[in-house]
Amino acid sequence: MLKLKIKNVDIETGGAPIVLLNTSDAYEMGIHSMDRINVHFHKKVKTAIVDVTSKIIPPGSIGIFKELDREIPIEDGGFVNIEPAPTPASVGLIKDRLLGRQLKKNEIAAVVKDIVTNRLSDVESVFFMASAYTTEFSTEETVALTNAMVLSGEQLKFDKGPIVDKHSIGGIPGNRVTMIIVPIVAAAGLTMPKTSSRAISSPAGTADTMEVLAPVNLAFEDLKKTVMKTGACIAWGGSVNLVPVDDKLLQLRYPLRLDPKPFLLASILAKKKAAGSQKVIIDIPVGRFAKIKHKSEAQTLAYDFIRLGNKLGMQVQAIITQGDKPVGRGIGPALEARDVINILTQAKDAPQDLRDKSLEEAGIILELGGKAGRGQGYALAEKLLKSGKAWKKMQEIIKAQGGNPKVKVKDLPLGKHKHTIKSSRTGSVYAFDIPAIVKIARAAGAPKDKGGGIDLHVDRGVRVKKGMPLFTIYAEHENKLRDAIRQAEKERIVIMEKSIMRVIDNVTELPSV
Amino acid sequence: MLKLKIKNVDIETGGAPIVLLNTSDAYEMGIHSMDRINVHFHKKVKTAIVDVTSKIIPPGSIGIFKELDREIPIEDGGFVNIEPAPTPASVGLIKDRLLGRQLKKNEIAAVVKDIVTNRLSDVESVFFMASAYTTEFSTEETVALTNAMVLSGEQLKFDKGPIVDKHSIGGIPGNRVTMIIVPIVAAAGLTMPKTSSRAISSPAGTADTMEVLAPVNLAFEDLKKTVMKTGACIAWGGSVNLVPVDDKLLQLRYPLRLDPKPFLLASILAKKKAAGSQKVIIDIPVGRFAKIKHKSEAQTLAYDFIRLGNKLGMQVQAIITQGDKPVGRGIGPALEARDVINILTQAKDAPQDLRDKSLEEAGIILELGGKAGRGQGYALAEKLLKSGKAWKKMQEIIKAQGGNPKVKVKDLPLGKHKHTIKSSRTGSVYAFDIPAIVKIARAAGAPKDKGGGIDLHVDRGVRVKKGMPLFTIYAEHENKLRDAIRQAEKERIVIMEKSIMRVIDNVTELPSV
Repeated sequence: MLKLKIKNVDIETGGAPIVLLNTSDAYEMGIHSMDRINVHFHKKVKTAIVDVTSKIIPPGSIGIFKELDREIPIEDGGFVNIEPAPTPASVGLIKDRLLGRQLKKNEIAAVVKDIVTNRLSDVESVFFMASAYTTEFSTEETVALTNAMVLSGEQLKFDKGPIVDKHSIGGIPGNRVTMIIVPIVAAAGLTMPKTSSRAISSPAGTADTMEVLAPVNLAFEDLKKTVMKTGACIAWGGSVNLVPVDDKLLQLRYPLRLDPKPFLLASILAKKKAAGSQKVIIDIPVGRFAKIKHKSEAQTLAYDFIRLGNKLGMQVQAIITQGDKPVGRGIGPALEARDVINILTQAKDAPQDLRDKSLEEAGIILELGGKAGRGQGYALAEKLLKSGKAWKKMQEIIKAQGGNPKVKVKDLPLGKHKHTIKSSRTGSVYAFDIPAIVKIARAAGAPKDKGGGIDLHVDRGVRVKKGMPLFTIYAEHENKLRDAIRQAEKERIVIMEKSIMRVIDNVTELPSV
Repeated sequence: MLKLKIKNVDIETGGAPIVLLNTSDAYEMGIHSMDRINVHFHKKVKTAIVDVTSKIIPPGSIGIFKELDREIPIEDGGFVNIEPAPTPASVGLIKDRLLGRQLKKNEIAAVVKDIVTNRLSDVESVFFMASAYTTEFSTEETVALTNAMVLSGEQLKFDKGPIVDKHSIGGIPGNRVTMIIVPIVAAAGLTMPKTSSRAISSPAGTADTMEVLAPVNLAFEDLKKTVMKTGACIAWGGSVNLVPVDDKLLQLRYPLRLDPKPFLLASILAKKKAAGSQKVIIDIPVGRFAKIKHKSEAQTLAYDFIRLGNKLGMQVQAIITQGDKPVGRGIGPALEARDVINILTQAKDAPQDLRDKSLEEAGIILELGGKAGRGQGYALAEKLLKSGKAWKKMQEIIKAQGGNPKVKVKDLPLGKHKHTIKSSRTGSVYAFDIPAIVKIARAAGAPKDKGGGIDLHVDRGVRVKKGMPLFTIYAEHENKLRDAIRQAEKERIVIMEKSIMRVIDNVTELPSV
């Protein structure tokens, strides 16, 4: 035991509790950076990970970050006693896995539990994820991983079933199908406690778009009440935090944009299981700019979802969808909310592609949930839309979440500053440059400025004449509009097909036969 | 660009510069934790990695850690402008490698350079090391890794060659051969700029032991002067820091006690190359408690060292040694220094095993360095020892490093508190429990208390009678002596052979024929 004087450090690490030791004290105790020690104070003991420093902390002192500080209310200048603490067994398990041994169910659970309870450092957790590349996760391991993740947070339970859900692998601008599917299937009597994400690097997530119509930061109890009252909700997943360990794991693999398959599968299905879902569809868009580039890859992933879902006691169905163009017309929270309302209220200029995709997905869920016979789902979904029942259900949800159910398209906070980009040539729309769309919509202020974004005037296959409007940029602030226009002048977001592919005017260019 | 108010954070991360952003500012900029931003101030730009927080830093402010602070001298309350910055290309290379692509020479160099210059986060660097387990390092990659590591720090150059060196894979208590080999080979006219490590979890490193006789924290120029004057030095590697990036990489793999082979090889040979070494021997102890457990593993490792050394322009010879017992009698800095002086001054109670191992290794180095013919090295080494030239050279080195060359064994600061443990039975010494020895010596105060440790009175094969002394514990402080005795009562560090292996008194126990 070594007695050290407390020096509080006014920072949170956000992860495992860390203490700073001076080099000479660490040397005396035989403690190395990243070793663990037990900190004793007032008959309490707390384990922390050591960072050794020759600066900031003088010999005889110990730097204590907020995390530990909260657990043991210690004042600057007080004293603690420290002693070396053993490394958690999970560290050895991670090493085993990295070096090639598949883990048992309870071993996977032990590792995840230690990540959840902040007993592992980031470096240790990273090696766990890296082990997915050295040693394939067996189905049993992936099941254990998912179950352990479910146990990391709270779980929803609803008496009225079937409980259905959907998830999109994402990466497609627009694509606000969730806000159309949820009211349709809830109107049919299914329960759909939907939690969605906010945009990280895209112009809008479903949570950002729903937030134009109603609050989405629902506390756990508010979410439950909304679902109990209306049969559904469209909430921000971050506010209920069903699977808190997932955020941590996502953050650690974010820098390399890694999606080790067992973690990708577990991340998605753990949230569904924690929400109490029984029937789930997974939308896997395939396209050059989508997360999944090839159909064969999508198919393998689909099988993986179905297999894992079954082992977890959920019926999963996967759909492979077009992922090479935006779905809907608006890109940005308010513009996307407008598309959603236009479809639900059957306005005549509602975007057909978004309507169709939503009805198709809703149809599958209705069939899965036993509300429609095989092949009858689309028709039922369309009927619920046309009858106005879907819009009525959406108004109930908006109201239950604390929004204005009488919202009209003209009330939506579209950016007051706008500018339309016209075609410089004649041709057919062949493709969209999705990264360019994202860049311009974000420059215009989306998703933080709800009214910023892009309104597309053309869809794929449309014949465009020179001078015809291609898209309009909306912004809440004039300077952001200027930034977005500058971006738009550099990028070509609507890609036109040339009728003449190549002009040959020289015989030497002909390929030799 | 977003203008934010500076809030200085009085902590060093020790790695890549980090800034703290409030969640809402990060959301507006589309920035995620672990993304990079450029921080603009007074026409300077500095890249930092973002940590997003909803606490501590209010919207409109930015938390700046000391690292960035030093580079851009900014005061609390000033303002900076920030913008998203691209991820370094090396992050993509690390991902490629993790997913199975071997890297080109310049790509390895780019990754290492970004680690050296703190452009990569710990998480990113960890994935680089983990990639050694998904995708084997080719010889070319390992060579590139080593060369890039050499370039991370300063390099020594001496005109007078050959420059020789040695390294032990380590893990064996005692084993202070370096302090005997260095003066012998320097006395023969070879140049040996030896840098050694301090103990992390063992009772003494060579640097800790040499420090009993002379300062070992030599600045770069002092080390050079010592070698130029005497032909050698025995310095602490940490003070000259020849390959700074190695410390960082070691620290990141320390929690899992990982030694990915290319990193292990590069770590050792980069330091030799940076020291200007031309001929190197690598000691690979094999034993149950040593780092390397099996001879076959040691042999593969030996080949790897030789092959890599050749590619780096060094002649490497590897020796596989007994690693299942302490070498020498003392364990702890002052006790080990005593053994060294006893051997060099030819005291009659000098430990024979340490003397022999040192002469054997010195002999090989003398042969490698062209000072002795093949098979003549041991004899020359013994001659240099017996003639007193080795001790004279050691005294020169001690003096050049700032110690007292007239040091005598009786002046050594052995702990004043001691206690001898006696044998409770009669038998032959069969083995030593090395982890128990380490634990007791450390409990007695080693390595921080130079005089703490264990003095073994028996060697393997010695016949011991009940009541004969096995070892004496030395401590500088009475309470540490008590702790060590308590440990010693729980552990059996000297393991005795039973003459009768098994008593058979029942025919049913006989194996069936």
